[in-house]
Amino acid sequence: MPEFQRPRGTRDFSPDEMERRRAVEEIMRTTAHIFSFKEITTPTFEHTNLFTKRSGEAIIGEMYTFKDKSGRDLSLRPELTAPTMRFYAERLRNLTKPVKVFYFGNCFRYERPQSGRFREFWQFGAEIVGGSQEQCDAEIIALAVSCLKRTGLEGLVIRIGHLGILRHLLKAEGLDDSEQNKCMQLIDKGEIEAFLEILGGKIQDKEKVSRIQSMVGLKTTAEGLGEVEDSLSKYEGIKTSIGSLKNILRTLSFYGIEDFTIDLGIARGLDYYTGMVFEIDAPRLGAEKQVCGGGAYTLAEMFGVEPISSTGFAIGFDRVLLALEKQGVKLPEKRITTYIIPMEDKAEETAFSIASKLRESGISTEIALARRSISKEMKRANAINAKFTVIIGEDELVKGTVTIKNMASGEQQELPIEKVVEFFRG
Amino acid sequence: MPEFQRPRGTRDFSPDEMERRRAVEEIMRTTAHIFSFKEITTPTFEHTNLFTKRSGEAIIGEMYTFKDKSGRDLSLRPELTAPTMRFYAERLRNLTKPVKVFYFGNCFRYERPQSGRFREFWQFGAEIVGGSQEQCDAEIIALAVSCLKRTGLEGLVIRIGHLGILRHLLKAEGLDDSEQNKCMQLIDKGEIEAFLEILGGKIQDKEKVSRIQSMVGLKTTAEGLGEVEDSLSKYEGIKTSIGSLKNILRTLSFYGIEDFTIDLGIARGLDYYTGMVFEIDAPRLGAEKQVCGGGAYTLAEMFGVEPISSTGFAIGFDRVLLALEKQGVKLPEKRITTYIIPMEDKAEETAFSIASKLRESGISTEIALARRSISKEMKRANAINAKFTVIIGEDELVKGTVTIKNMASGEQQELPIEKVVEFFRG
Repeated sequence: MPEFQRPRGTRDFSPDEMERRRAVEEIMRTTAHIFSFKEITTPTFEHTNLFTKRSGEAIIGEMYTFKDKSGRDLSLRPELTAPTMRFYAERLRNLTKPVKVFYFGNCFRYERPQSGRFREFWQFGAEIVGGSQEQCDAEIIALAVSCLKRTGLEGLVIRIGHLGILRHLLKAEGLDDSEQNKCMQLIDKGEIEAFLEILGGKIQDKEKVSRIQSMVGLKTTAEGLGEVEDSLSKYEGIKTSIGSLKNILRTLSFYGIEDFTIDLGIARGLDYYTGMVFEIDAPRLGAEKQVCGGGAYTLAEMFGVEPISSTGFAIGFDRVLLALEKQGVKLPEKRITTYIIPMEDKAEETAFSIASKLRESGISTEIALARRSISKEMKRANAINAKFTVIIGEDELVKGTVTIKNMASGEQQELPIEKVVEFFRG
Repeated sequence: MPEFQRPRGTRDFSPDEMERRRAVEEIMRTTAHIFSFKEITTPTFEHTNLFTKRSGEAIIGEMYTFKDKSGRDLSLRPELTAPTMRFYAERLRNLTKPVKVFYFGNCFRYERPQSGRFREFWQFGAEIVGGSQEQCDAEIIALAVSCLKRTGLEGLVIRIGHLGILRHLLKAEGLDDSEQNKCMQLIDKGEIEAFLEILGGKIQDKEKVSRIQSMVGLKTTAEGLGEVEDSLSKYEGIKTSIGSLKNILRTLSFYGIEDFTIDLGIARGLDYYTGMVFEIDAPRLGAEKQVCGGGAYTLAEMFGVEPISSTGFAIGFDRVLLALEKQGVKLPEKRITTYIIPMEDKAEETAFSIASKLRESGISTEIALARRSISKEMKRANAINAKFTVIIGEDELVKGTVTIKNMASGEQQELPIEKVVEFFRG
């Protein structure tokens, strides 16, 4: 039993795991580039009040919070939207609009470790600040969907809603902003009973309550949205929200994205989400199936800059990895091209020189760093997944040759030393 | 003045900065792959005792240390060798030997922020566990040198030493292990006066003291090492150390690496370094010029596993970036291929469809997310560094065409809508 262990809820990633993670990261990074988003990075910890300002004091209970040696209150970041908006307020707002950025970073939550939930986890996310709200909303959904689909993930369920609809309905029934916020939080947590209790306390008409309740549970299509619009046509604010949602869906259809569900029960829980919201599920994951969440928000004011349209999403990177694994998706492997094996000490000069030349040519090359039996070396060649071995023994040294073995076919050939680099360069 | 600021000593990285950082990271990552090293990742924080065990209690004064909500003592990692060896002891030691791993990660030090030193900084490093010590030492130096040279960094000064030489000399003069350790720490910090004071207290013969002093200051060539060997031939242990160093240098010469200085004054300061040590400087950086440090170590025992040869290095990633900037090195740019501009609302369907198709083909494409004047759009096209713009206005819509403008040459051409994807796929 080793003396030291990693902290509870954290993970080490082995070479195989890192290869999978980097392959998926690369797919998402490339997708963001294709969509013309630029990467930013912010610090791993921030002043604690940055996060409480965005998410409320309750977030402290879920954060790694500490004081530095000068007494500053700091927290490991639990999410990356607030840091991005802080950075925006400080520097990015000088860029031409819309500002389209993405990030890939680790976040931290102090919560009970469970399947698919870790205390250190990774998020891939993007934000657009500026531009026409509806077109930016469509663009951000399109990017999120592309990032996920390009990994090979299948059976994604895209749910899109608009907070304006429910909020206006509650407002029309006399619920003020703070009561609305409370309701949104309860819906977000799935605490429908508590939500209905609040409604019951404000609204006498039982039918009205049940109509609102059914709206929260409503899952429909773009066409079904028309029916909702008709049934609520007397509320001016709702018409605006539905009109806006329809514009977003229209732009999405230009992108070829039409396989979504309208879900008016998406609430997101945080007060500055007021417009379009969306979530994407990978149903294979069971209870923890949501792999992406996002929507339009109004955070800029909170950070002391002029109001500006903003929209974004965050993908739960670890869950995507888990979903890909459950689906059995094969990711591109990084193979070692050749394993060079000097069988004698006196073959080392030749072996290291060949290795050095191959590496200069960009060919991935392993060289045996100790003398061992040929059978042990073949085992290692397989363990490191080398395509070829290059064996230099006494015979070869005398003849000025090497023996090249194709590890898949078992085929062997002898080649003069000076032809080796050429052979691998193809 | 924005209300929120990032914590002192930390940094935000803008899109331009991230592009440079990722380009350099990619070069180092590719180099590690070419050398057949595999990536690992460990948690951002560890139990505090992992780091005090490696570096001594004094490190606490330089770390971000905190208790989690269950009272565990945790610290943000100040370096990545101890976590790697913890991971090795726990899981990696089951892999075939030698285990060749690399990491790229952020580390944290609570120190006074100054030029080239930050409280959150990045390290790119590698370790080899197992294999023949001398050949692994040569391989690790070769990887470090390649990682740095492939970035385009010039004028690197590679200094190589061996702790066995000085340690044996001190031992021969009656200094025990703990006195030797103290001396090594003082030399590492450049506190030569304090070091000489200890020597003076132990050694009567002034000439001997000054001979040891000159050894600490010695910078020589591979040939010069022969002279040192001759002058110290009566010490058996020193002969072994010098012999070992010569073997390493011999293997390095097979790799074509011969532009190094022998520096017997490299001390590294930590007790478990006992063999080859090396440092690489980028002289352009002035006082903070060291960009890489490493050497052979004996940490495995500390982590409760059987003794095994190990060697590694860490590159100060931020300093490399700074040195490249000072040298004026141009790094590969990621350009946006095309910026699609619908000039009218009714051109949106065509514009978004083209954008969608180009993106599906992997062509990086920006689309205007609000309607603005053509002059504003041309400014944006330049700001995002687009190679081409695709303009769709009223005229084009009527004719079923688009106008493509090469932003470098200013050349324009009209093309039928259905030819656009083909044009960019080239």
